[in-house]
Amino acid sequence: MFATNPGKQKGKFAFISKYKDLREILMDHKLAALGDAYVNFVYSLALSKRTGEPRGAKVDSHLLAEALKRARLRNFLPRGTDRHKQADAVEALLVYVWTQGLMTLEEGVDALSQHEETVGAFCSLLLASKERLHL
Amino acid sequence: MFATNPGKQKGKFAFISKYKDLREILMDHKLAALGDAYVNFVYSLALSKRTGEPRGAKVDSHLLAEALKRARLRNFLPRGTDRHKQADAVEALLVYVWTQGLMTLEEGVDALSQHEETVGAFCSLLLASKERLHL
Repeated sequence: MFATNPGKQKGKFAFISKYKDLREILMDHKLAALGDAYVNFVYSLALSKRTGEPRGAKVDSHLLAEALKRARLRNFLPRGTDRHKQADAVEALLVYVWTQGLMTLEEGVDALSQHEETVGAFCSLLLASKERLHL
Repeated sequence: MFATNPGKQKGKFAFISKYKDLREILMDHKLAALGDAYVNFVYSLALSKRTGEPRGAKVDSHLLAEALKRARLRNFLPRGTDRHKQADAVEALLVYVWTQGLMTLEEGVDALSQHEETVGAFCSLLLASKERLHL
């Protein structure tokens, strides 16, 4: 079972399942649906921070799929997984790490806002998230 | 100037302007753009909490406009303001209160998840948010 921080998150996210491995997280499409909202919010905050004014943005799924590949996480998914489901995998992992108290929203915003290029920003956030799973 | 909680939020949201009154917050469309991402995230979390499984959802702007009216905040906007801009006003106020540390994400989720009906949920969150401005 993955590292969690139960003191911080106990009962708060009772709707999140227990997962046996990374692949199971990456392939949970319900988790990805919540992750979509999370990713757009973190990205909007990072963009606001970088530009100095409030901004809202939806992250293009092609960019998330590209970030998954660059972070070498693409291979955890079955061959033939389409780009949309690759983007889902990114959303699922990022929100999972947040719900488990392994990365705060603020840390996510900071990680993203350090990069000008979206794919690089999400690649870096994915790598940090994967690392936190194994704390 | 509105109540803020600078100890908690200092420097964190430097991209948020100072506003002189409620109307100015409600009419800030840039703030609403960030607020759109915030509202979808809080709503998705509340829905996940209520249903017991991760969910993602976008809140219909008609429902937000209706909540604004029910919370008696519609009158702060000029006559003839369309529904889309009424929904923007809701998004702007809710994210403003969060950025100022006047309401946590968790409090927002709790407030929303207590209501089965979306308009009632947002009406209640709007009233609580307005109240926090004047702490």
